[in-house]
Amino acid sequence: MIERLCVIGVGLIGGSLARALRAAGVVREIVGCTRHAEHLQRAVDLGVIDRFDTDPATAVEGADLVFVSVPLGAMGAIFAAIGDALADNAVVTDAGSAKAAVVADVRSALGSVPDRFVPGHPIAGTEQSGVEASFAELYQDRRVILTPLPDTDRDAVARVRALWEAAGARVNEMGVEHHDEVLAATSHLPHILAFALVESLARMSEQREIFEYAAGGFRDFTRIASSDPVMWRDICLANGEAILTMIERFDQDIASLADAIRRHDGDRLLAIFQGAKAARDAFLG
Amino acid sequence: MIERLCVIGVGLIGGSLARALRAAGVVREIVGCTRHAEHLQRAVDLGVIDRFDTDPATAVEGADLVFVSVPLGAMGAIFAAIGDALADNAVVTDAGSAKAAVVADVRSALGSVPDRFVPGHPIAGTEQSGVEASFAELYQDRRVILTPLPDTDRDAVARVRALWEAAGARVNEMGVEHHDEVLAATSHLPHILAFALVESLARMSEQREIFEYAAGGFRDFTRIASSDPVMWRDICLANGEAILTMIERFDQDIASLADAIRRHDGDRLLAIFQGAKAARDAFLG
Repeated sequence: MIERLCVIGVGLIGGSLARALRAAGVVREIVGCTRHAEHLQRAVDLGVIDRFDTDPATAVEGADLVFVSVPLGAMGAIFAAIGDALADNAVVTDAGSAKAAVVADVRSALGSVPDRFVPGHPIAGTEQSGVEASFAELYQDRRVILTPLPDTDRDAVARVRALWEAAGARVNEMGVEHHDEVLAATSHLPHILAFALVESLARMSEQREIFEYAAGGFRDFTRIASSDPVMWRDICLANGEAILTMIERFDQDIASLADAIRRHDGDRLLAIFQGAKAARDAFLG
Repeated sequence: MIERLCVIGVGLIGGSLARALRAAGVVREIVGCTRHAEHLQRAVDLGVIDRFDTDPATAVEGADLVFVSVPLGAMGAIFAAIGDALADNAVVTDAGSAKAAVVADVRSALGSVPDRFVPGHPIAGTEQSGVEASFAELYQDRRVILTPLPDTDRDAVARVRALWEAAGARVNEMGVEHHDEVLAATSHLPHILAFALVESLARMSEQREIFEYAAGGFRDFTRIASSDPVMWRDICLANGEAILTMIERFDQDIASLADAIRRHDGDRLLAIFQGAKAARDAFLG
């Protein structure tokens, strides 16, 4: 049981976790915190949190679990603000989608990474954002990756794992760097490609016409280009190195495919497409 | 009213048009043709066609409308086979997704492009294929592009337009080259990116693990990588020039985005992502 959960950043991610834990009956009190009181009042009205405080330092007082789900660019400031105010037994975790950057921000905000801080990342979300879009089932059967450091308290890891499992998620642990590489491949690169493609088409002179002839496949393909631009800017800045490595790798694959088209190499094209279809059908169903 | 419709290639595209026209009550008899009798018998059993003939030349006898929906690589052979067998009043149209290649194949098969041949392309489909996947509503509110040549008989164009409208589609006309550019941008490039991304990830050593952490966005983004590899090989070969132009343009956009990441240029990244989101939200809803 969590006696007092403090959620810093009450949007889709934070709001949905609060709803899920309340629905699971594993939390006694939920305190919300963001900069805007009217936003927090809305979260109270929706029954997502019990009460709120716009000051992170007072919001975390007496909380035994703190969930930081603010944009990547705001992590450092939040940890600097709450560092001295945390209860001795408080376990802190976050939802940042680039773990090396969060760990670095925590380290520079506090001088060192607290052993009861468990870096985490729920692989879930929609193109919506804000507390109004939050729902208790968001994490059902979704993956959550925890990236504890060598010094991280194992009891703190167990508490965070239990929290996510109570929300319906499946929890895995891996190293910080490996997380960042996996996410660059499966999430960051696809988003960047979708954004770039839509931007590319929008700049073509026949833009309105172009989009009129876009079929279902294009809609699916570019849905993620409707995601929050600020969040994606932050991710690109926070996980730049791993993303650039993936872009480079992908560039080579596209160049080799373009080369096959140029040489009218049907066998090579077929092999690439068959390999991709087999992989997708096998792994994603 | 169509007295006798001959559908050459009775799969998702041909089967769905047959079903739609029958449901609309605008066709008296439907003759199907592919190479495999058992496949055609299945189409008869499903009520998609009335009878069949595995020989294209005899299948088109007496037909006043012929719909050729075979893979791009098979177009030339079909037109060579039916050229002399077509009734004088027969209007012929096709469903090839690259129009310059189809027109060139028809020209080399017959010596010239018949003035009652109306090149066409329904912008519709699913990742499924085969007559079992066909359904009457496939073309409802979908776009169909017709690319008549300067010499194409206007009455033939009107008949083909009426046929598609009876199937529920919205019909536009444009030039052959423009069609191929628009489709390279909205369909061919996205498919190639999706295939290349999945193939790229599948070759990474942690492939199984990688796909396990793929979230909903990745599934949407790569759904089109489950499309028919043979069809996409044919499209790449048939529309290679326009596709290579789009790949080149896209390469530059990705390079500029990678450059912004490398320079930690958050403003530039935000502008790109905001532009893409605005375009997608405005045009695709």
